[in-house]
Order: sequence, then C-alpha cells, then structure tokens
Amino acid sequence: MSSIDKLIDIFKKFPTVGPRTARRFVYYLIKLPKNQIDELSRALEELKNNVKLCQLCFNPFEDSGGPSSADLCEICSDLRRNKNLLCIVEKEADLLSIENTKKYNGLYFILGGTLAMMRKEDIDNLRIEPLKERIKTGNFSEIIIALNPTPEGKATSMLIERMLKESFGAAQDLKQSFKITHLAKGIPVGGELEYADEETLESAFEGRK
Amino acid sequence: MSSIDKLIDIFKKFPTVGPRTARRFVYYLIKLPKNQIDELSRALEELKNNVKLCQLCFNPFEDSGGPSSADLCEICSDLRRNKNLLCIVEKEADLLSIENTKKYNGLYFILGGTLAMMRKEDIDNLRIEPLKERIKTGNFSEIIIALNPTPEGKATSMLIERMLKESFGAAQDLKQSFKITHLAKGIPVGGELEYADEETLESAFEGRK
Amino acid sequence: MSSIDKLIDIFKKFPTVGPRTARRFVYYLIKLPKNQIDELSRALEELKNNVKLCQLCFNPFEDSGGPSSADLCEICSDLRRNKNLLCIVEKEADLLSIENTKKYNGLYFILGGTLAMMRKEDIDNLRIEPLKERIKTGNFSEIIIALNPTPEGKATSMLIERMLKESFGAAQDLKQSFKITHLAKGIPVGGELEYADEETLESAFEGRK
Amino acid sequence: MSSIDKLIDIFKKFPTVGPRTARRFVYYLIKLPKNQIDELSRALEELKNNVKLCQLCFNPFEDSGGPSSADLCEICSDLRRNKNLLCIVEKEADLLSIENTKKYNGLYFILGGTLAMMRKEDIDNLRIEPLKERIKTGNFSEIIIALNPTPEGKATSMLIERMLKESFGAAQDLKQSFKITHLAKGIPVGGELEYADEETLESAFEGRK
Repeated sequence: MSSIDKLIDIFKKFPTVGPRTARRFVYYLIKLPKNQIDELSRALEELKNNVKLCQLCFNPFEDSGGPSSADLCEICSDLRRNKNLLCIVEKEADLLSIENTKKYNGLYFILGGTLAMMRKEDIDNLRIEPLKERIKTGNFSEIIIALNPTPEGKATSMLIERMLKESFGAAQDLKQSFKITHLAKGIPVGGELEYADEETLESAFEGRK
Repeated sequence: MSSIDKLIDIFKKFPTVGPRTARRFVYYLIKLPKNQIDELSRALEELKNNVKLCQLCFNPFEDSGGPSSADLCEICSDLRRNKNLLCIVEKEADLLSIENTKKYNGLYFILGGTLAMMRKEDIDNLRIEPLKERIKTGNFSEIIIALNPTPEGKATSMLIERMLKESFGAAQDLKQSFKITHLAKGIPVGGELEYADEETLESAFEGRK
Repeated sequence: MSSIDKLIDIFKKFPTVGPRTARRFVYYLIKLPKNQIDELSRALEELKNNVKLCQLCFNPFEDSGGPSSADLCEICSDLRRNKNLLCIVEKEADLLSIENTKKYNGLYFILGGTLAMMRKEDIDNLRIEPLKERIKTGNFSEIIIALNPTPEGKATSMLIERMLKESFGAAQDLKQSFKITHLAKGIPVGGELEYADEETLESAFEGRK
Repeated sequence: MSSIDKLIDIFKKFPTVGPRTARRFVYYLIKLPKNQIDELSRALEELKNNVKLCQLCFNPFEDSGGPSSADLCEICSDLRRNKNLLCIVEKEADLLSIENTKKYNGLYFILGGTLAMMRKEDIDNLRIEPLKERIKTGNFSEIIIALNPTPEGKATSMLIERMLKESFGAAQDLKQSFKITHLAKGIPVGGELEYADEETLESAFEGRK
C-alpha cells in the first residue's frame, strides 16, 4: 500500500474523520514544508514517551521522566483541591469543560466511556474496578456522577450508582460514608421552554429557586 | 392587487412564513375543493367571534356567549388549581409546554413578549401594568418567572423582578408576601457536558442533588 | 371541537406546516385586529370565486368574471409567446422559477405532480390525458420535459417520454412532429466538483462548451 | 509547551479542524497503543520521502526512488490517455472526482487554488507560469477549464481564459491551436427547479437536449 493510502487509513480512524476528510489531511500534509512534517513526527514521539495516565483519575498528563517523575496529574497532586469530592466523568473533554467553569474544586475520575447496552464486554471497557479501588483509598463525602443526560449516560449513571451502593452501601464500617449526587437537568442557557422536552422542563420546575 | 397576491401578502406575515412558503400556501388553497375553503372561512369567523383573552392570565379561550358566558379561561376558573402560585410566561406556547408536563398546578400570567432592548415602546408592549394588577388582586406565596434563558428572556426577567420588588417589596402591609423564583438552568435531556456553555454547566453543578 | 382546534387541524394540512406551527398560526390570528381577520376571509372568498385554472396549461389565473371573462392564463393568451415550444413542469412554482429567468418564451403545461411509484392511482393523479389533448391541439416543434432530476422526477420524465412516443411517435400524418428535450444536468452555480455526484459531473463534462 | 498542546496546535491547522476537534485527536492518540503511534510516524516519514509532485500536472504520486525513479504521475505517464485534452482543476480532490466518473480520458493540470480577489500575491500562488509552460510543451486540441462555478472559481476561470488567449491566441504559428471549454452548469442530480438560482436554470435551459 502506498504511504498516501496508509495515511488515509490511519486518519480515517480519527474521531469525526471520514474518508474524504482523511484524504484532505494527506493532501494538506503533502504540501507542507518537510520541516513541519518533522515537527509533527517529533510531537508524536514526545506524546508517546511523555504522556501518562494519572494513577488516580486517569487524566492524561505530561511527565518528562527524570528524578521528579510523577504518577499523578496536576489536579490529583494539587494540595489545594478538595479531597472529599469526587466527580465521575465520561471522558477527558468533560473534565476540561468542568474545569473551565472554575467552580468545582474537587477531584475527578475518568470512567472511559458510557454504555449503549448492558453487554458484559461493554461494561468491561469502563473503569469500574479502578473506580471502586479509587473510592476505597479515598475519603469522599460526596460522589458526583456527572455523565451526560443522554440515554447512554443515564444507563451508565444507573449502573454506577447501583455498583456504588452494592460495594459501599452497607459498608458503614469503612472510613467513608458519602452521598451520591447528579448534575441538575434544566433549560440550558439560550434554550427555550417551547422546545424543551417534558423531563427537562419538569427538572427546571423542580429545581427552581 | 389580485387575490393571489393579496393572500401571499397576508400569509407572509404569519410567523415563520416567508414569501416562497406564502405562495405555496396559496397554490395549495387554489387546488382545495371549494367547501374546504368555506370551512376555513367559517373557522376564522368563529375564532373572531368566540375566542376571548382571559381577564386574569390573558390565555385565549373559547366562549360561545349566551347566559353562561365567561371571562376566565379553563385554568383560572378551575377550583382545584393552587391559587397561591403564579407562573409568568412569555407566550401561550410556553404555558402549553408547562401544562403538558402535568407537574405544575398553579396559575399563569402571559406577559405577551420579551424585550430585545429596554426601549420604552417595547416595554409598553408587555403586560406590565396588568401583571401588577393581577398580583394585587391575588394572594400569591410564590411567583415563578419562567422566561427563556435567552438574552431577551434574561433581560425581561430582570426587569420583571425589579418591578416586582419596587411595587411589592416594601408593601409588607399588603396581604401578600411572596417569594420570587426562577426555573433551574442545567443540561437538558439529551445534552452533553462537552458542548454545554459555562453558565449552564455551573448551574448544573450548583443544582446537583 | 373548538374553533382553535379546528383551525389548527386545517393549518396542519398546509404544505410544510406541522402541529406546532399550526398552533403558532392560530395564536398569531388570535392577537390580530378583527378587521385583519376579515381581510383574510375576504381574500379567501375572492380566491375561491375568481381564480380559475387555465384550460390549456392548468396555470391558475385571476378572472373577475363579466363579459371579458377568460379561459386562458396570461401566458397562454399572450400573442408574443412562441407557440411552438411546450415546457412540461411539475408544479406552479417551477413555472414561476423559469419565468423569472426571462429566457424562455414558449408555453407551459403543469403536470400536477410526479410519481414516487408507478402505481395506477398515482399515475391517474397526473394530467396525462389533458397533456395528450394539449399536444394534439397545439403545433409544437419541441417539447421540453422540465421535471426535477430527482428519482421521482426522473421516473415521471421517462413515463411522459414513453407516453409521448407511443401517442405521437408514429403519427407522422399528424400535423406536428416535435423533438423531445430535457434540461441539462450539471454543476449548479455555487456548487463544487468535489461534492458533485458522478452523474452530475459526467453531464457537466458531456455538456461542456 | 507540552507535547499535548504542541499537537493540538499542529492539528488545528489541518483543513476543517478546529481547536475542539484537534484536542479530540490528541486524546484519541493518547489512548492508542504505542505501536500505532509508531505506524503513523513511519507513514509520515514515507510520505515525506516518497511522495513527489508530477512535473507535468502537479498531481502527487508515490515514487520509492531507485533506478526506476519517475518524474511523472500515473496519469501523465499512461500511454493510453488522450494527450490532446487538458483539464485544468483547482485541486487534487477535483481531479479524483473526475477520475471516478471514468468518462474523461485526457490529461490534467492542478492549478493549486482559486482567487478570492485579484491581488498579485494571490495570483502568484497559482501555477500560472507552469501552466503556460505545460501548454507550450504539449499538443492540445482542447483545454477544459474545470473550476467550481463559485465566485472564486469563476473569477479564476476568467483570469485563466484571458491569460490563455493573450499567450496563445495570436500564436497561430505555434504547433497548437486549441479551443477552450467550460463544464456545463445545470441542475444537479437530486436538485429542484424551484430552488435553483436563475443562472443555473438558464444554463439548464440553454443546454437542453
């Protein structure tokens, strides 16, 4: 296979990229000065060598190795964060969106996905066991399940909540006893009552203040 | 002007209808059997004669006249509704959306619009004075400002809230003393954290439970 | 049924109008001054009484009755139009689009629809017999089948062409002998080669000049 | 700058990629097995080393070097292609679209862009001089200007046509004398007359057959 076709094949697997866009990427690269291709290769190499997943929350972070080498991301190793709050999110981008609000000061756990169906192989793809481990070693007073209110997110929320209750519910002898919370549903900024679905509107009414 | 052009002109002013759609409406009517045109004319005549605006909430309702003629809509004249709750909405469709949830049992007030700008003529188009009158004659413990979280809805919300405080705030001698509430903002059903704006996400966090 | 619900029912059948928009139309009408409702009713009455379909091309036109009453639309009765060209279109809006180009000076025939499937009842809805009649009484040198290059338009084009050939092909003794043409397919203004489908691109190449 | 941010910066410059998608690409890469990152790096290296632009038409092609090293792409070196036809396209993807129709058997020339404005620096970005050179050394009976019927494509078409006439028009002593053609404009497959702009509809009428 030619390197053009090989690259199209690789780019086609990138999220949101179809064959037409993959091809456009390759044409773009062909026209790029060679030193910029080298730059891309070097950045890939660095990514491969320096980026780790945080041992606690699975957030990727950069670590250049050496004596000061770390196992924890910037958030988990930040002493000023509230260690009693854990926010479970689906993916890195959700963590980032929440961080951008600058209103949450607790810790995170990246679940790694949500479930379309309750098949064993799908459940195995989520970081369920690492999550239990994380909670056992932590000291949380509140666990926020911050998954999307989509069908997949809701199903996964229910699964996580059930799992938490089974694993920790009767465990009053454990050091922790946490409450489980969920993000509020409601009308988003810019949204309109007329086009809101009933469940959203109900939540907006119930949560009024 | 021909009746075709006259009708196009009239339909063009209907909400969401542009000149092309207005023309399609007329072509549609031309092909309709004559008795169906008559039916439309009759329904318009009835609408003109029988539909009134409720004296209390401005919700349109049907009244065929006669000795049992009414001044109040079905909601305002329903004895089972909670007379201590008033929900201020922009328009009829919003009232209907809320009714469809079957979770709100109080009364309504249709404001008649929202403001893009704080111009006197725009403010005069809203039912501000009738709203004050409505509140004076009522006995409300809570007033829910249920306008859209759009820029116009927010500006109008602020205006209404200020007006309510000015008119009723110091009036502790009045029979009523109500709290003012707003619908919860949050992630709508089907929405995603990644694409939520910061204010929505903040509200979703603050309102978590 | 209330007049509000009756009107919603009627408007719901208008092209492109769903239940939500139908309701918005009714709320709009409720707020309209009564004399504007009367104006709409009068325009509907006039439409019903004055608009006829042209006996030759089925284009709707306005005729106020009286001694100068007409059976033909402005185009068919215009002596300056080229009576040797007939352009078959699906619907009134297509005729209008072509007229707006000011480049076609022949006559039209409005077929009244296209076919999704070759079912007898669908075929009966088209003005096939009136079209044959029209061609027999005319004197055409060219018949332009100007249906959309959509699947329905293409199927109907083929049907019309076959019908024309069967009815007039061997009829060399008839006074007319016309050629059948079709609009050119190609890249539309503003379109892009990259996103054109193969058939369009082929036509654009074949028709190059 | 971290390798994550460096990669986001690089991907942001890819066509159609914004900062959010660039970030998703990086998260995708972080989760990829390391050997797949290596594969991507190798494919980039090969692309850099093996892909050349054809000396005649500027189409990129793969050449692994060695004694059989070539200067011409598969099309330009294909003896069965018609060497009397030259089709000028804006970019590689347009060439590919035309090839996919399998109806054109001539040669190509990739102009490298189109012009939004007639600024000297923009014109210099196009391969105008190489195009003249190409035509001089060729033996063409027809030159097809196959640029998009967009404002930019049309302006560039006119520029190319004027340039061709200036350079080759009076050159009857040259060995070649070619005609200049343009792709047909018309209704695309799936399009509708009602929504076609006037110029498209005019072209569809003029090109009817």
